[in-house]
Amino acid sequence: MTNANPILGVYLSDSLDLDAVYGDALRSAADDVVLRHPHEIDNPEDVRFAICWLPGEQAFEAYPNLTLAMSIGAGVDALLAHPGLGDGVQIARVRDPHQADLMAGFAAHEVLHREREFATLERNAAKAHWEPLPMRAPASAKVAVLGHGTMGRAVVEAVAALGFSVRVACRSQPQAPVKGVTYLTGERAVMEASNGADYLINVLPLTASTENVLGKALFAKLAKGAWLVQIGRGEHLVEDDLVAAIESGQLSGASLDVFRGEPLPADHPFWQNERLRITPHIASDSLPEVVAGQVIDTARALRDDQPLAMGVDRARGY
Amino acid sequence: MTNANPILGVYLSDSLDLDAVYGDALRSAADDVVLRHPHEIDNPEDVRFAICWLPGEQAFEAYPNLTLAMSIGAGVDALLAHPGLGDGVQIARVRDPHQADLMAGFAAHEVLHREREFATLERNAAKAHWEPLPMRAPASAKVAVLGHGTMGRAVVEAVAALGFSVRVACRSQPQAPVKGVTYLTGERAVMEASNGADYLINVLPLTASTENVLGKALFAKLAKGAWLVQIGRGEHLVEDDLVAAIESGQLSGASLDVFRGEPLPADHPFWQNERLRITPHIASDSLPEVVAGQVIDTARALRDDQPLAMGVDRARGY
Repeated sequence: MTNANPILGVYLSDSLDLDAVYGDALRSAADDVVLRHPHEIDNPEDVRFAICWLPGEQAFEAYPNLTLAMSIGAGVDALLAHPGLGDGVQIARVRDPHQADLMAGFAAHEVLHREREFATLERNAAKAHWEPLPMRAPASAKVAVLGHGTMGRAVVEAVAALGFSVRVACRSQPQAPVKGVTYLTGERAVMEASNGADYLINVLPLTASTENVLGKALFAKLAKGAWLVQIGRGEHLVEDDLVAAIESGQLSGASLDVFRGEPLPADHPFWQNERLRITPHIASDSLPEVVAGQVIDTARALRDDQPLAMGVDRARGY
Repeated sequence: MTNANPILGVYLSDSLDLDAVYGDALRSAADDVVLRHPHEIDNPEDVRFAICWLPGEQAFEAYPNLTLAMSIGAGVDALLAHPGLGDGVQIARVRDPHQADLMAGFAAHEVLHREREFATLERNAAKAHWEPLPMRAPASAKVAVLGHGTMGRAVVEAVAALGFSVRVACRSQPQAPVKGVTYLTGERAVMEASNGADYLINVLPLTASTENVLGKALFAKLAKGAWLVQIGRGEHLVEDDLVAAIESGQLSGASLDVFRGEPLPADHPFWQNERLRITPHIASDSLPEVVAGQVIDTARALRDDQPLAMGVDRARGY
């Protein structure tokens, strides 16, 4: 396929070789959408869009005609807060249904791991020790889900299918609610969903109003000995409050997949805390072929002056 | 509440103190259904029914007027095969929806544990080592579920909600199929559902035709490196075939919750096999208050000559 009117984009990331991850998928799917590393670009004024993962502070300055910055992840907080992106630049993101399934699986695993005491079962098995542990009906365990975007909906469906009692803090009542799930809206939704919960799963977007939401006041609303599954953004969590809540027994522990600084430094005390399960930001990932397809569709829509299906509402923040 | 016409039952188990587990729940729910240990019974001819968990060979002989034996678990294979239970004795069982949710959660956990390589993640975390692992779309992973009773349906719903591709071997096409799930029936259903599967979850009932079903021929149908989740009955599994399939790499390992002999003896080689995850028959459990309610309802139906909602078809075997 040849095309007389290609559109040029640039990869912008300080930490990831985006061409290594997505280049093959992009090239095999289209030849009218062209992506280059910054050092491969002869005429920066030809660059119309950028594919981004944690771009540097000056990353956008070289491209006067940039009109779109697209995140390869679901979270766009880094782009919204970027000083180099004025209102004239549209922001878009990838929305991969497989990514939501992956996220739901991770959350379900962590809840089940704690609820069914697999750590104890594994220790017993290592000693050839046979000892059934007591269990309760899943419906007796209260799971709070914070956030109800693509990720949150998948998480809710998964934990509800496992029989848990689920309460969700969301922006608006869903059009297709899951049977038996309680949906809470309004300013107090996060607190109300968390009230008495045994598990707290965070999949909120990072905005000014959700930063530091996982802190002392919220932890105090949970059932004694609750478990946190933190798969939102590192900035949602007040780390000292988490440690204090674990020390007091208000939380029995947490699964942490995201951090304020990543990779989590080897000397961070979280690694040594036996009540924490640390994973390296792997709750979900987007698939190269899905990302490539959405990048191509979005770039073509930009070129053809069509609305962007993956566009982000800058005022709302997601 | 008093009742002029109580019905008397007996606890029969060689391994479990059924009164300790269910007595309080039974007594607080009804006084017209009375359960006793054998040594507490003055007139054995008054006993109309038995609540059973692995009763001994002579357990039923003392009770000439017994007309019902009820299993406190979902599996009734031990009662169907019992030499002391003639055709004149009806067999019934408990069917606890929470028990199915527990089973589904166990199966989902074991699939996710393997699929997302949590063993590796945990080893890395213990070394403060940050290393994201590659992942695939859940829809790319093929899960075969053998059996589609109360347990099987709950398992299917759970793994389908996690985005996996699910094929089920069942007796008949379901009235309310789960979207996207493939249901296979007929003599070849078990083999066809397993063909190319990455995960094999066994929740079949134990019958003459399902004994030893988890053996060499079935393992050969699976995808190379598949994982077995064995939560049916110990007698479904040919242990030597499992070990051979792991040694050849055809299976990468298995989660085993049920065994031919329980507790699994401390010197059984399974404990030492690093490719096996051994749990002490805890995939699910029935809840005392649910068991008590169904025992009471069933005993009253027996007394009042009503059909038994929890009755078992002896010819079919479940």
